[in-house]
Amino acid sequence: MKITVVKVGGAVVEDPLSLEELLGEFCSLPGAKVLVHGGGRTATKVASSLGITTEMIEGRRVTSAQMLEVVTMVYGGLVAKKIVSSLAKRGMKAISLTGADMCAVKAHRRPPVEIAGKMVDFGFVGDIDSVDADSLVSLIKEGTVPVMAPLSFDPQGGTLLNTNADTMAGAVASALAKAGNEVSLVYCFEKKGVLSDPDDEDSVIKRITPASFVSLKQEGVVSGGMVPKIQNAVLALESGVKKVLVTSHKDIPGGTVIERD
Amino acid sequence: MKITVVKVGGAVVEDPLSLEELLGEFCSLPGAKVLVHGGGRTATKVASSLGITTEMIEGRRVTSAQMLEVVTMVYGGLVAKKIVSSLAKRGMKAISLTGADMCAVKAHRRPPVEIAGKMVDFGFVGDIDSVDADSLVSLIKEGTVPVMAPLSFDPQGGTLLNTNADTMAGAVASALAKAGNEVSLVYCFEKKGVLSDPDDEDSVIKRITPASFVSLKQEGVVSGGMVPKIQNAVLALESGVKKVLVTSHKDIPGGTVIERD
Repeated sequence: MKITVVKVGGAVVEDPLSLEELLGEFCSLPGAKVLVHGGGRTATKVASSLGITTEMIEGRRVTSAQMLEVVTMVYGGLVAKKIVSSLAKRGMKAISLTGADMCAVKAHRRPPVEIAGKMVDFGFVGDIDSVDADSLVSLIKEGTVPVMAPLSFDPQGGTLLNTNADTMAGAVASALAKAGNEVSLVYCFEKKGVLSDPDDEDSVIKRITPASFVSLKQEGVVSGGMVPKIQNAVLALESGVKKVLVTSHKDIPGGTVIERD
Repeated sequence: MKITVVKVGGAVVEDPLSLEELLGEFCSLPGAKVLVHGGGRTATKVASSLGITTEMIEGRRVTSAQMLEVVTMVYGGLVAKKIVSSLAKRGMKAISLTGADMCAVKAHRRPPVEIAGKMVDFGFVGDIDSVDADSLVSLIKEGTVPVMAPLSFDPQGGTLLNTNADTMAGAVASALAKAGNEVSLVYCFEKKGVLSDPDDEDSVIKRITPASFVSLKQEGVVSGGMVPKIQNAVLALESGVKKVLVTSHKDIPGGTVIERD
């Protein structure tokens, strides 16, 4: 089966107009699809209203037991249900999932890691072990679109774990590919694609291959937060995903294609 | 298909020990099952932490736009995922749903009602129009247990609506019965059943019929919050549900049986 996995980040999901634009594009995509969403800004806002301080280290959220409750409420509740409600209003039967639902995404708690000479414990943060592609496919075959929050599940601890949404999307796409599907993975954000000049929205690099990515990185054309995103994309290609798009939420498919040579 | 619909209220769900006792009983029930949960106390607590005042009129929550966000986070996120995670840890594949997920429970916003001579607008509160039994049955046939939050969906407004959990459980059970299933409905709470003496836990009335309910009400044996619960039960019987149990979360099946003569 052809399946498109679309990942959409916080900045788009949390702005009502952008979210509606994205969901319009998403609904008009032909064929089977899965949506993976973030929601970090809302989590930070709700945490702050509850008097809980957000600590980020290298762009990753330190997730205490209290913060896990916040991200469960925000990713698994508020943001997820806003998306599913909007899709339902458009006539699309969607269902929101965390890793615990149908035991769809199993993970283990990340052990403390050394960062800048110090051991950092990120708390309830999960590294994904497996995605149950069969459960997702069975929903899709019933005509239901899975909408996935960035929360994985630790079966030993019986707890959700906070997981990066880009990583979640990559793992879902890879598992669906390994199960024999033809998978495209789309990373949606506010820019038109991977830009060769960050200040010029029209400098979209049309095509990147694993080989050209090495040069682009060495020349410094691709840098910052775009590097791990493309690394995720290359990993997805290696595990059988057909192509990865990095594009605007207003233009699916479009933007930059990342594919094998 | 034989299906047991179990409704469990806030007091049980929100106490960690009681919740584990309930989920143990739930897992050991044979055959197909659905869980419908509440979560009102946690919603009130989270609302309060966010500086939002809870207003209850005749035991029902007035649901402003802000309060709708709170109940979406708490019922659809926090409470639902705690239940699903605990079931998953026990090896049960469960999935948490609101009315918007799979468009499972459609409703309309309740118009203002007159209470004690004053018009009261309950806000984002829903009266259920329909439950999509087919979607629930298709999940059950895949070996997945639906776990349902007391949130229905308004397809016109594209919004969730707050809905009483007892009513939700009754509507789900009725829809499954009308679709040709043999349905038992279980209302779980802290007491052992419907008591003839509220101060004596051992005064459980073993069996109530629609006819005996009329006498029990007239004699004042059944009163207070138990009356609408049994009224819901009688309505469920009228729409084809085979029997209704009112029992302790530690004893399913047990307690009081409500069934036709």
